[in-house]
Amino acid sequence: LPLVCLLWEVAMIVLFGVFVRFSPEADAHWEKEKQEMNLTSDIENDFYFRYPSFQDVHVMIFVGFGFLMTFLKRYGFGAVGFNFLLAAFGIQWALLMQGWFHSFKSGKILIGVENLINADFCVGSVCIAFGAILGKSSPIQLLVMTLLQVTLFSVNEYILLNLLHVKDAGGSMTIHTFGAYFGLTVTRILYRPNLEQCKDKQGSVYHSDLFAMIGTLYLWMYWPSFNSAVSDHGDAQHRAAINTYCSLAACVLTTMAFSSMLQKKGKLDMVHIQNATLAGGVAVGTSAEMMLPPYGSLIVGFICGIVSTVGYVYLTPFLESKLHIQDTCGIHNLHAMPGLIGGIVGAITAAAATEDMYGKEGFIKTFDFTGTYQTRTASVQGGFQAAGILVSLLMAFAGGALVGAILKLPIWGDAAAENCFEDDVYWEVPEDEEGDAYHMHNPDKPASP
Amino acid sequence: LPLVCLLWEVAMIVLFGVFVRFSPEADAHWEKEKQEMNLTSDIENDFYFRYPSFQDVHVMIFVGFGFLMTFLKRYGFGAVGFNFLLAAFGIQWALLMQGWFHSFKSGKILIGVENLINADFCVGSVCIAFGAILGKSSPIQLLVMTLLQVTLFSVNEYILLNLLHVKDAGGSMTIHTFGAYFGLTVTRILYRPNLEQCKDKQGSVYHSDLFAMIGTLYLWMYWPSFNSAVSDHGDAQHRAAINTYCSLAACVLTTMAFSSMLQKKGKLDMVHIQNATLAGGVAVGTSAEMMLPPYGSLIVGFICGIVSTVGYVYLTPFLESKLHIQDTCGIHNLHAMPGLIGGIVGAITAAAATEDMYGKEGFIKTFDFTGTYQTRTASVQGGFQAAGILVSLLMAFAGGALVGAILKLPIWGDAAAENCFEDDVYWEVPEDEEGDAYHMHNPDKPASP
Amino acid sequence: LPLVCLLWEVAMIVLFGVFVRFSPEADAHWEKEKQEMNLTSDIENDFYFRYPSFQDVHVMIFVGFGFLMTFLKRYGFGAVGFNFLLAAFGIQWALLMQGWFHSFKSGKILIGVENLINADFCVGSVCIAFGAILGKSSPIQLLVMTLLQVTLFSVNEYILLNLLHVKDAGGSMTIHTFGAYFGLTVTRILYRPNLEQCKDKQGSVYHSDLFAMIGTLYLWMYWPSFNSAVSDHGDAQHRAAINTYCSLAACVLTTMAFSSMLQKKGKLDMVHIQNATLAGGVAVGTSAEMMLPPYGSLIVGFICGIVSTVGYVYLTPFLESKLHIQDTCGIHNLHAMPGLIGGIVGAITAAAATEDMYGKEGFIKTFDFTGTYQTRTASVQGGFQAAGILVSLLMAFAGGALVGAILKLPIWGDAAAENCFEDDVYWEVPEDEEGDAYHMHNPDKPASP
Repeated sequence: LPLVCLLWEVAMIVLFGVFVRFSPEADAHWEKEKQEMNLTSDIENDFYFRYPSFQDVHVMIFVGFGFLMTFLKRYGFGAVGFNFLLAAFGIQWALLMQGWFHSFKSGKILIGVENLINADFCVGSVCIAFGAILGKSSPIQLLVMTLLQVTLFSVNEYILLNLLHVKDAGGSMTIHTFGAYFGLTVTRILYRPNLEQCKDKQGSVYHSDLFAMIGTLYLWMYWPSFNSAVSDHGDAQHRAAINTYCSLAACVLTTMAFSSMLQKKGKLDMVHIQNATLAGGVAVGTSAEMMLPPYGSLIVGFICGIVSTVGYVYLTPFLESKLHIQDTCGIHNLHAMPGLIGGIVGAITAAAATEDMYGKEGFIKTFDFTGTYQTRTASVQGGFQAAGILVSLLMAFAGGALVGAILKLPIWGDAAAENCFEDDVYWEVPEDEEGDAYHMHNPDKPASP
Repeated sequence: LPLVCLLWEVAMIVLFGVFVRFSPEADAHWEKEKQEMNLTSDIENDFYFRYPSFQDVHVMIFVGFGFLMTFLKRYGFGAVGFNFLLAAFGIQWALLMQGWFHSFKSGKILIGVENLINADFCVGSVCIAFGAILGKSSPIQLLVMTLLQVTLFSVNEYILLNLLHVKDAGGSMTIHTFGAYFGLTVTRILYRPNLEQCKDKQGSVYHSDLFAMIGTLYLWMYWPSFNSAVSDHGDAQHRAAINTYCSLAACVLTTMAFSSMLQKKGKLDMVHIQNATLAGGVAVGTSAEMMLPPYGSLIVGFICGIVSTVGYVYLTPFLESKLHIQDTCGIHNLHAMPGLIGGIVGAITAAAATEDMYGKEGFIKTFDFTGTYQTRTASVQGGFQAAGILVSLLMAFAGGALVGAILKLPIWGDAAAENCFEDDVYWEVPEDEEGDAYHMHNPDKPASP
Repeated sequence: LPLVCLLWEVAMIVLFGVFVRFSPEADAHWEKEKQEMNLTSDIENDFYFRYPSFQDVHVMIFVGFGFLMTFLKRYGFGAVGFNFLLAAFGIQWALLMQGWFHSFKSGKILIGVENLINADFCVGSVCIAFGAILGKSSPIQLLVMTLLQVTLFSVNEYILLNLLHVKDAGGSMTIHTFGAYFGLTVTRILYRPNLEQCKDKQGSVYHSDLFAMIGTLYLWMYWPSFNSAVSDHGDAQHRAAINTYCSLAACVLTTMAFSSMLQKKGKLDMVHIQNATLAGGVAVGTSAEMMLPPYGSLIVGFICGIVSTVGYVYLTPFLESKLHIQDTCGIHNLHAMPGLIGGIVGAITAAAATEDMYGKEGFIKTFDFTGTYQTRTASVQGGFQAAGILVSLLMAFAGGALVGAILKLPIWGDAAAENCFEDDVYWEVPEDEEGDAYHMHNPDKPASP
């Protein structure tokens, strides 16, 4: 691990040295630039349009995803710590990869706040995939996966946004569908038949569920920022935030309803509350900035709360027992299915767009029908949106298979099955009363050294 | 529960479908609108004035209130989870109710970011009332209370803001006074004489107090955003944030002082630190955007820290034993009394306003003395502000009595007294070492199934 | 304690009454001011440039520093609670002290959002010093230290920013170097030889490490806001955020690498992850707003992750055993050394600046080479930056020695050595199963009363 971290960081420094410079709005020449662009005020700097959203997204990636995964009773350090490691590495590599594809000008990558958001987005898809293999992989495996997944993500994103000219500001397709199916393919290939023996460690304890709720709530609250962060200035950011807010609110109610309905005695299950309540945000990722009306968002949230909760109850056990897909956090229910729904809703919303609904200027601005796309119609756009889903799926399966095969090589020092979901393998764990209590109540396990 | 959630969510979708559309600033026609309004830049969109404050308020409602109530040792899931449920439902209903009263144009409710903030505010008053009945009610009771309280809140708000033309940007009257006395009336009517027997579950454990501090700190830190979120653009938002900051800082010191003074051996009590430190924010809710000078804020915070802490030590036990008001979180000390103080301070500050102090334009803008209110004077405004307090109190008592009576009907499936403050009734609780430890130390209780 | 708190708060009210008023941008006269300044929109109010950053900084001070210090198994209340107390008191005193030095106009201190940020910054340096004496001091000692340290901080800041005309927007020198060496000097003077006997209480438990990670992550995520909060509008804020983001990302990787490398069996240590990952933010505090290129930030982060982690492993034990510096949180590794590095990097970056690199206007604006400084060159500026480091160090040692001597007076009621790192002395601690468990596993300690 030390060697890998140091080498890669050195590589980052060299590549940043060669390629990365500030965008005009972050460069000290901005004073002059401003005059040339005839801007009257510093407030026109993109920083003020996007920085608050950026910080919200940043919190989602590091606290949101990190703490969401702390529900495991003995893997809290790994959940937060490895998420921290892979995200910190991933954003650097993502700045480069996405920079080459999108911000490359005369031999340099020019970065500004929008690049930071996109790097966070890209890493978000890695955090999603991490959810599937949580507790079963070594940190080196995670770093290798991050490197490769960020690369594939950027290629997929380039195909969708630039070649197909697809709109996907909240990343239903690029982040969630791709990230989740990628992670599921990887975990399928890394299938561990003997995982049963640490079944007792896959559960939660009372406090670990509360820690996980911190993650859930930050993801839920800041999701409007996630879906609006890179939308067009003005009405598009505004609209995306409102739609996401509505969808998430509806999703909470149907999640609670189905969680209670599907359990014996009508009790609520924290796993559903922690996860399925977020599905509504995933599923309006593509369409939130379009003229999806607020009631449309409610319908999407309504459906996703149901689909996701039902998935946790019936589909996850099925995937594990029949298809050998061991999905620790249930990303299939939280990201994969809602992501697909999001892609479809986006395609429909785009296909149904009319100039009347958007206004002439609004229509062109929303779908960016300028230049070579000047003549594209709404229904054609809908078709391309649908194609984007298929491309993302294809990339996820193919990429996941490739990366899974690489991670299966016996050189990455992954833990034995009996050590899965146990922080003690990779972390100095305090020998505390709770640890003692844990082993006290599990007398068949030897005390940790 | 499942049926109620699903039916209400369907009702929401239908009502949103009929009534809710985007405000001009969130609509794709904004491009054209902008030209007509002669705006030069997208940054003039209200989104950029209010979105950061909105996100802070959002955190206060879901993390702030949610975690503040996790101090109970065995009711953390209920505190965070039910708060999540009622808030998610409440914001949808509030968007409709407040929309009909305030944003109704040619048959449609036009929503923008300010509506989202107001919906969060409205739900805040429900979260306050929830604090009084925490641990003693079923989720269905909570949903019924949310539905009715949001309705009454909106009516009260309409009377105050539109009929009396009262200023109350931070909601000392509309949110805190109304919400707290409403909740106290409800809990009085739902009085449970046998609650003594689960006295041991009404306490906290070491970690649950730390979880509650997360809630406290987020409420404390973001309160300046709460009080400034819907103030006028520019100086009013700026001033409201500064005043709230000052008041809260002063409040911490007097809370600590009195907490230490009133305990044996001079020790500090976490209950006071978690709650009374926030009273300063409540009490400048009305006046923060007015020209209350910073030292005035300090005085308000100074007094409220004392009042609130003394309330916890002497008043709460008195209310419980003599008046049969079982106030789980002590909302009387944190919201009711400081809310009243806030209303009074607001009335005085308004009555004392002079054109000299505000400037001619500032005076008119701050109190919105335009149109039919062009001739209203500062002292008359002070009188109306005072009337606003009385109306809020009246609505709270009458509404609370009504809703309490409805909730007392034996059809809502509320828990028996011995199951109060216990997550196990409504939640799948992991059977963990701590749970065991809990029962180990409470040998008179049977082990949870 | 009660008396001190109340007296000081009364003093604050009086001083605020005499001196503090609103800045023009927060005053109701702003409507007129705006016309005179020919501003077309309320969005030009400084509030909208700085408020989001302010809130992030606010979270860092109260949640970041507060929870970072909750790692101790029995001192969570003290860490969060005393941090809350001293910060709430400190910001009021800092508003006054910094106001007299920087915002004093015709007999009044005019405060706006930038003052709030600077007050938070000033208190940040007290929170840093608190880290060194965490668990060993009484609340009164902390309040006395806060009063004196804020005073000295403001003097030092005045010398640096006004007399030496040094740039230090992120406070590598003024906040970190000064705060850390001040705290280390104080803890040296308060040396307690018998602290060994509560060695067992200086450790963490599993959950307390997770609470500390909340603090770590909020500091890490919001550090870009910290370093950009008071930079010039526009490109400088933008650039500072990007540089800090890059430096922090690099720092995580080298911290993980060295943490694993320096432990037996290659395990990771939570102490390093919680602290050393943040060193990169400290070390670009001075230079982030300058034209330090992104790869430069990566190099700084790279080095600081190593220096800080090595410091935890080798230097902290050495300081304690040889120099009798008992540094509870290891602020020498997180703030002192990275702060020095930050000062040096800032001096070099300033000295290396050219008009070509910044553009003519940008060069003048960045270093504020106007008025009497019109003729200062980059290399001279570099020299003054270096002088700023020395002045900060000198002030820290002299001030720390003085304050340490005052705190050593036997009148402040500090706890006996065997009660250090124990909440029970100053807090009502719930007698819960965990507390019991704690004593159960430490049978040589008497049960808490």
